[in-house]
Amino acid sequence: MRIAIDAMGGDNAPVAQVKGALKALSAFEDLNIVLIGDENKISPYLTSSDRVEVMHTEEKIGSDEEPVRAVRKKKNASMVLAAKEVKEGRADACISAGNTGALMASGLFNVGRISGIDRPALSPTLPTMDGKGFLLLDVGANMDAKPEHLLQYAIMGSTYAEQVRGIKHPKVGLLNVGTEDEKGNALSKAAFSLLKDAPVHFIGNVEARDLLNGAADVVVCDGFSGNVVLKTIEGTALMMFSMLKQELTATTVSKLAAGLLKPRLKGLKSKLDYSEYGGAGLFGLAAPVVKAHGSSDENAIFNAVRQTRTMVEKKVVSIIAEKMKEVENEKKGEE
Amino acid sequence: MRIAIDAMGGDNAPVAQVKGALKALSAFEDLNIVLIGDENKISPYLTSSDRVEVMHTEEKIGSDEEPVRAVRKKKNASMVLAAKEVKEGRADACISAGNTGALMASGLFNVGRISGIDRPALSPTLPTMDGKGFLLLDVGANMDAKPEHLLQYAIMGSTYAEQVRGIKHPKVGLLNVGTEDEKGNALSKAAFSLLKDAPVHFIGNVEARDLLNGAADVVVCDGFSGNVVLKTIEGTALMMFSMLKQELTATTVSKLAAGLLKPRLKGLKSKLDYSEYGGAGLFGLAAPVVKAHGSSDENAIFNAVRQTRTMVEKKVVSIIAEKMKEVENEKKGEE
Repeated sequence: MRIAIDAMGGDNAPVAQVKGALKALSAFEDLNIVLIGDENKISPYLTSSDRVEVMHTEEKIGSDEEPVRAVRKKKNASMVLAAKEVKEGRADACISAGNTGALMASGLFNVGRISGIDRPALSPTLPTMDGKGFLLLDVGANMDAKPEHLLQYAIMGSTYAEQVRGIKHPKVGLLNVGTEDEKGNALSKAAFSLLKDAPVHFIGNVEARDLLNGAADVVVCDGFSGNVVLKTIEGTALMMFSMLKQELTATTVSKLAAGLLKPRLKGLKSKLDYSEYGGAGLFGLAAPVVKAHGSSDENAIFNAVRQTRTMVEKKVVSIIAEKMKEVENEKKGEE
Repeated sequence: MRIAIDAMGGDNAPVAQVKGALKALSAFEDLNIVLIGDENKISPYLTSSDRVEVMHTEEKIGSDEEPVRAVRKKKNASMVLAAKEVKEGRADACISAGNTGALMASGLFNVGRISGIDRPALSPTLPTMDGKGFLLLDVGANMDAKPEHLLQYAIMGSTYAEQVRGIKHPKVGLLNVGTEDEKGNALSKAAFSLLKDAPVHFIGNVEARDLLNGAADVVVCDGFSGNVVLKTIEGTALMMFSMLKQELTATTVSKLAAGLLKPRLKGLKSKLDYSEYGGAGLFGLAAPVVKAHGSSDENAIFNAVRQTRTMVEKKVVSIIAEKMKEVENEKKGEE
């Protein structure tokens, strides 16, 4: 198996990419990696050449660039070349910690979509109280989703949860403003009807307040709402840590107590660290394409490679394609 | 000034309502209150009869009842009678901690809308790091909002922030998935164009992660997204408190430290307590109608009365009506 890694994307590139790749190579013997980017910047960290090669390019896409334009213009950008490795069959999957929109555009142009999937979804796994985590899709690839898209997300998310995360009969929920069946806006009401008959374990509507309690293993929603959920969790957690810090340093007594608590508070932070669950999949592309977090360190990249490797090994893309064909046939049968 | 209070809504009714009302009566000399509900349950807590009367009814609407049906059927429910007091000019405003949807239905049937406002919005004030708070609307009254509705929310929210919260030139933001002008779904893109020319201090798009940092004083969005923001903040804060508690009771050392920190951690919780900012206004109704939180205690009811009183005093409804007329005239002038 061969995975292409954009070595130049994200805040800690290329050191996190190179070290994370080396770590993955020693963990998985069936793995080959191609690191794509500036060879002069990559090689100082490349302490082994076993099953790893470097594809040199000086072009890269910045995090603030307009995605589609950047991908069209920079044909030799590290991220674009990574997707091309997949397109031309030299790699089974690719990973980048760079510009999310540009990765989606590279993926759409080069890797293409799974037949039956209209719109790919950006799909991160977020932390829950019990440490199991849940998959949320879409968090921003497709702003004005249609009910059929949410059905497709449910099938993709459920397949991923089952195959990659090892959850049997994953519970699939629909993000909504209440748990009752008839709740919601026009989109969620129409999606509810489709999900009731979908080949997934649909548990109905879930409210945003229950997500982190593990109400469902897979939660589907339009890209706007999903993005709002993701960023609200992030903002609330950051505010609480910052307020906690203020309280813990306010008096001599609280500073003393804070000192005693330090190891435990670190544990709290790591429980909320979603890089532990790997990157966000761009589900719906015709091969695994994974977006690692922009602030990914060596360990986050390692987790993203492990996750991507499992997606290839378990043939997640083929299983999704197969299921979409069944849904399509059933629809034809009904007509 | 006379305010009608549904004494039977919410988890702590009627004791919170009665005690909160008495507290407000001693704070504000110009205030008269009518408490509506079961006299037998109210009178034990009613230690004064100065400027307060009880309107007896045994009917009430439960928190799980289907709103419109309940309001239609229970014509003598405490909440419905409160809205009728406003309709018939005997009260200037009303407050309930009961069923939100039913309060909205009672308001629409009895109080009616401000001319120029298509759909009322449920508008709570949420906490921010600096303690100033921000107004979020709509959080669930209008699921499939149109761009014009968001414009109306901006005008209503801005007026409230200025008149009731005393913020000069309140910053109005549009909830979106990025801060750049062209971001978003079809709704937010269309609303952006309208807001650019609106008679408010529009600061552009705000991301969900910056809300609690006080990015704007007023944030407008459709009811689905707003509900998702509200419940995600709630769920994340609850999870973090619960995880913190786990860590603080995990070992003898951490228990000791937790003991020392107790007063400071209480401070943290109270900073996040949005009952301090009063209830959620049902902005757009032709008189102030305020929804106090279902778990309101005496203090939360007091704050809701104070807020409602200021809305009446500052003539928030007339100012909104006036502004909507101006917007309407300008639109006609352009045509």
